[in-house]
Amino acid sequence: MRPVYISGIGSTAFGRHHDMSIESLATQASSQAIKESGLAREQLGALYLGNFISGPLNGKEVLAGIVADRLGLPGNIPCTKVEGACASGGIAFRHAWLAVAYGMCDAALVVGVEKMTHATTAEVTSALNCAMDNELDGPNGLTFPGLFGLVWRAYDRAFGLARDDVSAVVIKNKRHGLLNPLAQMGGQLSFDEIAASAMIADPLQLFDCCPATDGAAALVLCSEAMYRESRKQPVRVLASVQTSGAPQIAKHLDLCTFEATVSAAQQAYASAKIGASQIDVVELHDCFSMAEIVDSEDLGLVPRGQGAKWAAEGRTDIGGDVAINPSGGLLAKGHPVGATGVAQIYEVVRQLRGEHDNQVAGARTGLTHNLGGTGVACTVNILQAEQ
Amino acid sequence: MRPVYISGIGSTAFGRHHDMSIESLATQASSQAIKESGLAREQLGALYLGNFISGPLNGKEVLAGIVADRLGLPGNIPCTKVEGACASGGIAFRHAWLAVAYGMCDAALVVGVEKMTHATTAEVTSALNCAMDNELDGPNGLTFPGLFGLVWRAYDRAFGLARDDVSAVVIKNKRHGLLNPLAQMGGQLSFDEIAASAMIADPLQLFDCCPATDGAAALVLCSEAMYRESRKQPVRVLASVQTSGAPQIAKHLDLCTFEATVSAAQQAYASAKIGASQIDVVELHDCFSMAEIVDSEDLGLVPRGQGAKWAAEGRTDIGGDVAINPSGGLLAKGHPVGATGVAQIYEVVRQLRGEHDNQVAGARTGLTHNLGGTGVACTVNILQAEQ
Repeated sequence: MRPVYISGIGSTAFGRHHDMSIESLATQASSQAIKESGLAREQLGALYLGNFISGPLNGKEVLAGIVADRLGLPGNIPCTKVEGACASGGIAFRHAWLAVAYGMCDAALVVGVEKMTHATTAEVTSALNCAMDNELDGPNGLTFPGLFGLVWRAYDRAFGLARDDVSAVVIKNKRHGLLNPLAQMGGQLSFDEIAASAMIADPLQLFDCCPATDGAAALVLCSEAMYRESRKQPVRVLASVQTSGAPQIAKHLDLCTFEATVSAAQQAYASAKIGASQIDVVELHDCFSMAEIVDSEDLGLVPRGQGAKWAAEGRTDIGGDVAINPSGGLLAKGHPVGATGVAQIYEVVRQLRGEHDNQVAGARTGLTHNLGGTGVACTVNILQAEQ
Repeated sequence: MRPVYISGIGSTAFGRHHDMSIESLATQASSQAIKESGLAREQLGALYLGNFISGPLNGKEVLAGIVADRLGLPGNIPCTKVEGACASGGIAFRHAWLAVAYGMCDAALVVGVEKMTHATTAEVTSALNCAMDNELDGPNGLTFPGLFGLVWRAYDRAFGLARDDVSAVVIKNKRHGLLNPLAQMGGQLSFDEIAASAMIADPLQLFDCCPATDGAAALVLCSEAMYRESRKQPVRVLASVQTSGAPQIAKHLDLCTFEATVSAAQQAYASAKIGASQIDVVELHDCFSMAEIVDSEDLGLVPRGQGAKWAAEGRTDIGGDVAINPSGGLLAKGHPVGATGVAQIYEVVRQLRGEHDNQVAGARTGLTHNLGGTGVACTVNILQAEQ
């Protein structure tokens, strides 16, 4: 394996894009990433596109080939859509990284995209439930808010967890979102406002849940030789790991942890030869407030049972022990499902370049965490600014 | 890159499986392939699943993780669904091959699957049209039979082509299907029966079109060191190439050829260091009779303008210059979309082992060709029996 660098990044705003097709969103983010990389289209040797539910929601597949066509990429290169529920973007990134790391090509484009806001809530819920094991878990009737409601209950039994404990995560991420120009719904929220919001899946309330979102993010990855010194500060991919876990809720005997995250994080730290304490900035999969608490512990960033406490004490805020979701996370930035894993890396690259709107001072090493379905698919990446 | 071998193969029958879920089809084929390989599940380092339209037709995604769970694969390995319309299976195979060839793991499982026959014709047509560029090509109102009707018209203008010329392909493949126990609809057809069948998209008639199909096929790929000498005759992957082409019909200036096929074939022959004349047996993408004529020429197996003539003269039959689609092809074996690219390799492996029901005598080198959408995605593989 050879070193891989991120040489260009691009993203649409996250939110409602009723005037743009899913192809257009992906093309816009990709064009921006290619332009910033300074590479010519002919230098790109592969395209990976992360998308989850364009089939059910947009009646469109084969998006990798369509986006390659819109971009004018060479016809003799492989263009592939990958899918792994909410981890689709992270999986696409890992495949672009593999392609460059193992020398299949010298530069690769990855783009993640989803378009959801044109659909009704019922259509979106039904499409998102494609990530459940509907054959074996179907009879329990759970949707994803239901799953993370169960996680909250289990966590409360194990460690104790009150409404306001969880709200600390919501308040932090919504506040971060206010300063991120790409975010869909940042906000300055109070404990009372969160506690008064609509009940979604007891005990999860409205502000505990990420919104449905349209958006795309893209990255150009390349070898060291192809990296242009004249460009931005180099960001290197130290590790990219993809794991799997149980697709049925019933198989998760302890809902306070997701094995796929624990395994991916352990592999990533070992591969990067660094410890969790060396991570300065993190974008993790807070599809629900409760997920951030569990994820931060699974990633080894926060001690077991302390996820909410660290958030309340500001230890996972910018300026704390480790800055978690300074982008606003999925809760505030939004969650265009297939885009999220790529967008997390976009955000961390901006941090490591020192150009983020919510800059973590001196951030040198970052981590991204993308979790799919019931923890059935996970990717963890570790990125580092070259000095 | 190191040599990669196919050490186990599995397939369900192709046809109607109203009693089996899509996960069950994939699991059955995979279990068979793993068992035949002689490898333990713990030795598998990656799973790639090829599928096109399970989202729209079955309301199920994240199938790679679900199938891995059913099979009892290790949780810390990457399991990925890939999609590229009708080439999804071929693309999944290529990624499993890359994983072993580049040393990411020593053995990988690939499975292709689709479940279609429970849906109405309108639902299937709508789902298949997800492979069109619906944003730019949509207004022309074409479906895939319409596209290959246009191909026929263009070919007729260029080379001359009568109904009976094309029927030679149908008669050959349907006859082959009769002897393949996995085939959905083999048959002994006459020129008159074909000419009398229902018009689908003028000039394409009923027997020119492959059916909608349920089915799955799977393969275990592994390194030389892991190949068990005690097992079947070794089959080696000499080349695996994936290309892209225009997603819009309007961009195909010459409908008598698909650039993605030509490019993939040229790269595959160069990589394998053999010529088209050395190929003994071929499974190519005859989604329509007309497609076989064009594909056989694009692959360099038959001279330009001679595709139908060679079929009529028996030169693409078993015992001819090159045996094309001795499985019955998509026309007779059926086309469970995401399974097809993997199933083609299943068929060629059986030929190269000398164990096929429609055996091509002395077959040593085989080729598979999987084409997606309007030629937007293509894979070509060359396989060889070790002596």
